[in-house]
Amino acid sequence: MNIQIKRKKPASFSPQEGKDEAVIFFRDLRDRLCAEFEKIETELSATRYANLAAGAFSRKIWHHTNDDETPGGGGEISIMKGRVFEKVGVNISTVFGHFKNEFQAQIPGATENNGAFWASGISLVAHMQSPHVPAVHMNLRMICTTKHWLGGGCDLTPVFPNTKDEEDFHTALKDCCNRHDSEYYEEFKNWCDRYFYLPHRNEPRGIGGIFFDYIDTGDWNKDFDFSKDVGNTFLQIFPEIVRRHMNKDWTKEDRNTQLIKRGRYVEFNLLHDRGTQFGLKTGGNIEAILMSMPPEVKWE
Amino acid sequence: MNIQIKRKKPASFSPQEGKDEAVIFFRDLRDRLCAEFEKIETELSATRYANLAAGAFSRKIWHHTNDDETPGGGGEISIMKGRVFEKVGVNISTVFGHFKNEFQAQIPGATENNGAFWASGISLVAHMQSPHVPAVHMNLRMICTTKHWLGGGCDLTPVFPNTKDEEDFHTALKDCCNRHDSEYYEEFKNWCDRYFYLPHRNEPRGIGGIFFDYIDTGDWNKDFDFSKDVGNTFLQIFPEIVRRHMNKDWTKEDRNTQLIKRGRYVEFNLLHDRGTQFGLKTGGNIEAILMSMPPEVKWE
Repeated sequence: MNIQIKRKKPASFSPQEGKDEAVIFFRDLRDRLCAEFEKIETELSATRYANLAAGAFSRKIWHHTNDDETPGGGGEISIMKGRVFEKVGVNISTVFGHFKNEFQAQIPGATENNGAFWASGISLVAHMQSPHVPAVHMNLRMICTTKHWLGGGCDLTPVFPNTKDEEDFHTALKDCCNRHDSEYYEEFKNWCDRYFYLPHRNEPRGIGGIFFDYIDTGDWNKDFDFSKDVGNTFLQIFPEIVRRHMNKDWTKEDRNTQLIKRGRYVEFNLLHDRGTQFGLKTGGNIEAILMSMPPEVKWE
Repeated sequence: MNIQIKRKKPASFSPQEGKDEAVIFFRDLRDRLCAEFEKIETELSATRYANLAAGAFSRKIWHHTNDDETPGGGGEISIMKGRVFEKVGVNISTVFGHFKNEFQAQIPGATENNGAFWASGISLVAHMQSPHVPAVHMNLRMICTTKHWLGGGCDLTPVFPNTKDEEDFHTALKDCCNRHDSEYYEEFKNWCDRYFYLPHRNEPRGIGGIFFDYIDTGDWNKDFDFSKDVGNTFLQIFPEIVRRHMNKDWTKEDRNTQLIKRGRYVEFNLLHDRGTQFGLKTGGNIEAILMSMPPEVKWE
């Protein structure tokens, strides 16, 4: 793999400071996302599930132990099975240790210090009760080896594509990108389209969004401001799209179409997703990694 | 990959004759399996689905075209969505062409003739309505490059393991193996246990069976007799196990357990199964490859 991280960091950057800031932000974003999604649960007023109780998140903490028995950090899984959100998981984790030999060559800067790494991130996948509300994915991460960089993105997977949703989602992300770098949106939108694609079906997973990785312009604060803006933009636009559709009822056929569409999501995550493959092959927390699996799926 | 095919074939073997015999047997076995499964459908007398019509197979023919636009063979998908068999697919196919450069090194004898290959096989996966009836997989194949060999196997995936089923299934396969080579059963049972294993869950997929590949003892007729015996043994023992349980009703909890168990099947097939990975990466028929996906699945 040939990965170029843009420019070198200036001597003034303190990795520990950046790490602390990232961990704090990911946790805070997690709290705000969970609060907003629980609020949405209370707002449902129509559809077949309006008489059910509003959902609430439950939380589970896990610890990672490295192969040499040293502590390797851990994470928190927040999961809600509600009446709007059929299943939504919001994971945060901070793990550290050494990449195995066979992975070191794939990770920038990992061959130079025996594979030592530190990684922190937030990852969110939501599968909705209503086929009219798109499924969604959002992720932000900071990774340090002898190099360090930021990555992340978000993308929308509607069952029934809706022009206004698509325009609003992309406009919000474009505006977000443009606040930081005029080239980001086009580059990261295209990366997202290439990444969330099922070659065996010649199908995109959804209607895209943005995907970025290996961001290190040399100004960590600037880069992390962009990451934060992506998280905050997601927190603004996705709830708006959910509220737009959540009170419309659906037919049995709509539900069936949704369950079939979810099969594509499973195929993508298990066959192609780098994060899933990486997590499974490096002995990550199985519950956190497969939190992205839809609660119910059909194949024809 | 380091694969040893046992001994060389004698000069007397005519590959074309072997190919014809394999194609004819796989088709005949397909016909007998479909007929037996349709017969089982008519025999259901109890459970919540006994008032539904018995299922019947429908058939779909597909053709494969090689990258250079030459004909590459094709196959037939037989699929039944019934009242005993929630979804059962029985595929036969005969395809030929050239393995791409990146695959040639993985296939015995393929680097020596520009990757030229010929392959024929039968593949069966059944997902049952009743959580009391195990899901099952069976496959037989003949592959020719500059070498040629036979492979296949079958394995059982119960939701609720049952000692008698497990004993009877393994005894039938053991007796079958012992009719051909006293070392086969132990070797192929262990291979099956190693192969149908989910490392990320530390779980076997089911209760095993046999798995074999690269069989070429030098006596093709003897080897193919073994393949045929595996197919015929499967056709004897699996219907017996189905009939043993198909008239017992089940609870909603039993069904839920079944749907969760099916998630493991999906994980195995998309993350680990060589056949699935190989088919998807070589542009095989997507419908035939993913016929193994369960009709309905849940993840917790």
